Amino acid sequence: MGSIPGLSLLLLVVSVSSVHGGKILVFPVDGSHWVNMNLLIQSLHARGHEVTVVRTATSWYIKENTAHYHSITVTLPEAISIEDQDFFVTFLVKMLAIQKQGGSLISFANFYWEIFTVLSKIHQQASLLGVEIFENKTLMQRIRDTDFDMVLLDPGLPVGVLVAHELKLPTVFNVRWITSGEGHFVVAPSPTSYVPTSGFAAPDKMTFVQRVKNLLHYLLNTCIDRFVVCPHYDRLVARYFGPDVSFYHLLQGADIWLMRVDFVFEFPRPTMPNIVYIGGFQCKPSEPLSSELEEFVQSSGEHGFILMALGTLVKGLPVEITSEIAAAFAQIPQKVIWRHVGERPNNLGNNTLLVKWMPQNDLLGHPKARAFVAHGGTNGVYESIYHGVPIIGMPLMFDQFENVLRLEARGAAKVVEVTKLTQQNFLEAIQEVLHNPSYRRNMKRLSELHRDKPMHPLDTAVYWIEFVMRHKGASHLRTESFKMRWYAYYSVDVLCFLLAVLLLLAAAVVASVRFLCFRLCRRRKPKQE
Amino acid sequence: MGSIPGLSLLLLVVSVSSVHGGKILVFPVDGSHWVNMNLLIQSLHARGHEVTVVRTATSWYIKENTAHYHSITVTLPEAISIEDQDFFVTFLVKMLAIQKQGGSLISFANFYWEIFTVLSKIHQQASLLGVEIFENKTLMQRIRDTDFDMVLLDPGLPVGVLVAHELKLPTVFNVRWITSGEGHFVVAPSPTSYVPTSGFAAPDKMTFVQRVKNLLHYLLNTCIDRFVVCPHYDRLVARYFGPDVSFYHLLQGADIWLMRVDFVFEFPRPTMPNIVYIGGFQCKPSEPLSSELEEFVQSSGEHGFILMALGTLVKGLPVEITSEIAAAFAQIPQKVIWRHVGERPNNLGNNTLLVKWMPQNDLLGHPKARAFVAHGGTNGVYESIYHGVPIIGMPLMFDQFENVLRLEARGAAKVVEVTKLTQQNFLEAIQEVLHNPSYRRNMKRLSELHRDKPMHPLDTAVYWIEFVMRHKGASHLRTESFKMRWYAYYSVDVLCFLLAVLLLLAAAVVASVRFLCFRLCRRRKPKQE
Repeated sequence: MGSIPGLSLLLLVVSVSSVHGGKILVFPVDGSHWVNMNLLIQSLHARGHEVTVVRTATSWYIKENTAHYHSITVTLPEAISIEDQDFFVTFLVKMLAIQKQGGSLISFANFYWEIFTVLSKIHQQASLLGVEIFENKTLMQRIRDTDFDMVLLDPGLPVGVLVAHELKLPTVFNVRWITSGEGHFVVAPSPTSYVPTSGFAAPDKMTFVQRVKNLLHYLLNTCIDRFVVCPHYDRLVARYFGPDVSFYHLLQGADIWLMRVDFVFEFPRPTMPNIVYIGGFQCKPSEPLSSELEEFVQSSGEHGFILMALGTLVKGLPVEITSEIAAAFAQIPQKVIWRHVGERPNNLGNNTLLVKWMPQNDLLGHPKARAFVAHGGTNGVYESIYHGVPIIGMPLMFDQFENVLRLEARGAAKVVEVTKLTQQNFLEAIQEVLHNPSYRRNMKRLSELHRDKPMHPLDTAVYWIEFVMRHKGASHLRTESFKMRWYAYYSVDVLCFLLAVLLLLAAAVVASVRFLCFRLCRRRKPKQE
Repeated sequence: MGSIPGLSLLLLVVSVSSVHGGKILVFPVDGSHWVNMNLLIQSLHARGHEVTVVRTATSWYIKENTAHYHSITVTLPEAISIEDQDFFVTFLVKMLAIQKQGGSLISFANFYWEIFTVLSKIHQQASLLGVEIFENKTLMQRIRDTDFDMVLLDPGLPVGVLVAHELKLPTVFNVRWITSGEGHFVVAPSPTSYVPTSGFAAPDKMTFVQRVKNLLHYLLNTCIDRFVVCPHYDRLVARYFGPDVSFYHLLQGADIWLMRVDFVFEFPRPTMPNIVYIGGFQCKPSEPLSSELEEFVQSSGEHGFILMALGTLVKGLPVEITSEIAAAFAQIPQKVIWRHVGERPNNLGNNTLLVKWMPQNDLLGHPKARAFVAHGGTNGVYESIYHGVPIIGMPLMFDQFENVLRLEARGAAKVVEVTKLTQQNFLEAIQEVLHNPSYRRNMKRLSELHRDKPMHPLDTAVYWIEFVMRHKGASHLRTESFKMRWYAYYSVDVLCFLLAVLLLLAAAVVASVRFLCFRLCRRRKPKQE
């Protein structure tokens, strides 16, 4: 076997129905999701496609017309504060306070109440965007006139499926997290006995208690979907498409789901033929550091360095936590680069460099990188896997708890609970990951498995987007079973029917036997008389 | 979009753990299955791997040591007649006779009794092969000494999984048909509400009655698996590995399932991450015909030609059927090339050429090919899809009924029931496919979709075989949920527990209410007194 299989890679693409330079309408989600989407857009632009991005006037990250995309900017009537970055900081502080209260039923209810509120606000905002688009006849005409080939969207905020339905265009999802659950749960069978539900941090080999909790979480997620998230879009669907169209069916009917999933990270689970895995599609080799950073990193000598970053959404932690972290960092011989915005801890060690932004990928790919203190957002996790750097996980919200748990289950991460974080236990976690070689070894193995693919995930993503444009959809890969009634889908009607037949047969047998007995008795009686 | 996407196709293969020239032990299945496996073996040989094929002394198709593989020949103590080609002809005649009796319960029972008998015989033979290998210490030592990297097998006759387990080697399946059902049914959730069961020819959108039948077929298949097929191997497993090992788990635990499936042909259904689709991997462009054949084909002029072949297993049909076919062929202006062994129909038209063997792929790829009269074996179906030639389906046994139904559902084939075949209805079917342009158009569309792949399926197959050798398995892609007890897998225990809790709660509420009422009544009563 050669190191690079010299496969002939026969590209059997049919030229008949090719579209030269497709037109793609994109509905992204802001924040870290945009980082992903933007990368995909850049690739599509490089392949000669014309990309138009729908954004709101108050977007933080999504800029107006750039070199690689045009934009349609929609101004919302009332700018709800979720477009404000402080919104998530406030949310985080609340969540941390609730988690600190421990595992009581009240804190559990509080936790979910907060999530309900935030989700409802976010989706209300997104649905307002839908109203603005549908009501703005000039804008709709402009979109229609552009003659788009397809809609690419992040269904985290799924208003784009409505626009796609209106324009009768095929859809491709760039997805992991959708409405309240992981995308698979919407589109593939998800037995709760071995598929941990989104929002419930459990391994795929669960105890009985974990399986009970998992099923309850599944029901909870379904309720969030149906009663917190979907109503916002159901209203829009009812308003613009009438009662025969179901929002949930529009969501389930996407042609291709580009899933930011790779099974070195996720647990193996059922999937569908129209799901394409692009987990780690943002990963790329590191580039040289700036001279100052390189100098700092080199000064670490044989000890190497640690980096810490908590993602795009959360800029800083409360000072009582950061000072514990700073104290722990001060005690290790490694150098530390810490992406930190907010109050500077006054007990910072000489080995620790605070930065407002860091070239995360370049640092992770640096030969002196020893460990990554991360919140467990998927982008950071994949970069860490790609470069084989073990993680000290400090999950804060959403899917971050499950993400780090998955890596912990594979022996490639150590998890620290941020609400119980002390200088001592944080230091222990760092020492453990630095000095027990299994963490690095396991992460290196994940890295090898992750990199061993016939095609880079980013190219795979582009390929399937173009496939959908070439063939005006991919309906042959998509089951339409979601259109069945639930009792038919789950064969409840069939089972009831078979049960009824069995009962009838049993009754018939019993009746026959009784009848025969009765006749026999009657015959015998006269004789006895 | 270019006609061939100039994707960078970054091959991210890690060189660290590469094996240069792996050693592969192959357990094939004879007949048409071998055609597939042999193709894969040739590719593996070309990539520098050493392949060893296990065959029996009486194999029809699997030759001893060839240029591209070594062989291990096992002589079975009693050569059961299934190695004889007449075995399947006899079987076919019986099956046709039963089908002719119509849809009565007796003919249904007869039909399945024949299948049970044949399956049991085939698998008994295969398990004897297992005994011969395990009991032959010299042979086992020779296999052990060869230090194989993996076992590649066609689990249609799954004795190879036992050898792989004994040698602690990773396994790759080359599979579609496994034991009594389609491979997916063993490894992925298969809701009977929209996944037609193997052996039941139904579309994926089923009526209530079809869903009832489908569930019953599912149960029947499960029974065949458990009571007809598996016992032969269970005995071997019990004998050589003891009571803790389950044959069914060995089967479900394969690292990679190379499935001869493509969704232009199969209905979309749930799948698993360790399933790799290689449907149509045998397809390749046609080569020029021999000068005689080319001359015959060219003599068809603008009408073109039809070809007819019923696969490797069945050489001929009863003469009362062939004479009807010959009479129909004689009435069309097209030329006909008919692969036929056995009694020559005496009413053969001048336009019909009988041949003992035909270059099927080269004929299908010929511009004058108009239609293909086929039994619906997967090899022929994929070649037909690849070249975009519509099919007149004449299914005879096994999966052939479902295969042609799938193509009929997509408007690319017309099915003729062989037991009801008359000159008249056969002629009508041919005319329909030749003159209604939708058949050709639909098949061309399937062809376009099928060919539009980032990588040729044969290269994909080789890639994943090498992946398994590079990483000594692919356990990260494989769920181990099959090891769960059935009640845990289906969450029966969890549901019972939750129901019990609900009942207890309800009982507690009722009891409390009754107690309160009782107290209130008692208080009120004295007052009234």
